[in-house]
Amino acid sequence: MRIDIITVLPELIKSPFEASILKRAIAKGLVEVHFHNLRDYSTNKHKNVDDYQFGGGAGMVMSIEPIDACITKLKNERNYDEVIYMSPDGETLNQQIANKMSMVENIIILCGHYKGVDQRVRDNFITREISIGDYVLSGGELGAAVLCDTIIRLIPGVLSNETSALTDSFQDNLLAPPIYTRPAEYKGWKVPDILLSGNFPEIEKWREQKAYEHTLNRRPDLLDKE
Amino acid sequence: MRIDIITVLPELIKSPFEASILKRAIAKGLVEVHFHNLRDYSTNKHKNVDDYQFGGGAGMVMSIEPIDACITKLKNERNYDEVIYMSPDGETLNQQIANKMSMVENIIILCGHYKGVDQRVRDNFITREISIGDYVLSGGELGAAVLCDTIIRLIPGVLSNETSALTDSFQDNLLAPPIYTRPAEYKGWKVPDILLSGNFPEIEKWREQKAYEHTLNRRPDLLDKE
Repeated sequence: MRIDIITVLPELIKSPFEASILKRAIAKGLVEVHFHNLRDYSTNKHKNVDDYQFGGGAGMVMSIEPIDACITKLKNERNYDEVIYMSPDGETLNQQIANKMSMVENIIILCGHYKGVDQRVRDNFITREISIGDYVLSGGELGAAVLCDTIIRLIPGVLSNETSALTDSFQDNLLAPPIYTRPAEYKGWKVPDILLSGNFPEIEKWREQKAYEHTLNRRPDLLDKE
Repeated sequence: MRIDIITVLPELIKSPFEASILKRAIAKGLVEVHFHNLRDYSTNKHKNVDDYQFGGGAGMVMSIEPIDACITKLKNERNYDEVIYMSPDGETLNQQIANKMSMVENIIILCGHYKGVDQRVRDNFITREISIGDYVLSGGELGAAVLCDTIIRLIPGVLSNETSALTDSFQDNLLAPPIYTRPAEYKGWKVPDILLSGNFPEIEKWREQKAYEHTLNRRPDLLDKE
């Protein structure tokens, strides 16, 4: 998979890709991530990439020209499955979307900043708009990092133990059951006896029961999904 | 406001705090963000902070001892409003939570990594569990960065123009209307005439109508909220 991220602030988004799972996925060649600084595509001598809103109002708007130039250059080099715009009014990201998107070849992710992008960018260049949740961020960069993380960790070979992702929350519309590690007792707080029993079929039953109870308690809406 | 972030991977989470709005908020002294490397609190000679799950299963679990040591040290230094654990099964972050949380004094954010933390940490040290959405990340670090970004930009004085945040999506349960900037025409794609009219009361009406239509089209669920 190849991911091209277009942003006015590449330095903001770099560190999540330089550590841990994403770093190893890139090092193994399982995914390529390229950052494109939108300012490099500005034809303006001040390297401006934004301007005032038509009609007045607070906040700068990202201009169409440098975005067009960058996306067009990339699309001339290869085919893209999706050109994604990170926006709070996009389709809300969930695990099912991440699962599907982990199987595509090439994607472009455009990060909005300031007040957002000129609507004509969304109307003419974007194939999919994704939100990571119902809240507003300073820019699309953190959203892009979140989207990449959810996708990349699902690419086969990225996690050292693939079953580790399959037992995560949401993969079966259940939250994960509680987990414990040593010591078996700490300040009087004990690990449930069943987990120390060595009776694996009973442990499995206990975990299923706990996952169900936890989901019923916290997120009954998940139980209604198919 | 003071935010203490506890993580096994401080390097993963740093760049979002070193650019743009978060950087300026920190430079202005409107917020302090401290990173605590959990490994510094390990009493183990290998600086381990995780161990195998009791009862078997894929994925390592973060141990209670170093987390207890770090949280206890911080709580001995000052009072905290909340000790937050970032987890996909927590309360789902939204703009209302961000608004409220932008008014507290001190918070601790614990980032889970690997398979998560020992349940006894959650039962005994955590006051609030927050999820940024229904998907699984490699760790809580990106979630913590997202939470911090949503909160910090709302602290008075952080955004250069405060009305800029008030007109964002979600603040009134409406998505933002489309925005445009120069040029007025680009490759035959024109900015709506109304925005070039200079008739500000009509522009305001148009924007309200577009925000409503856009919300009805994409997120009718938001219109049902109070």
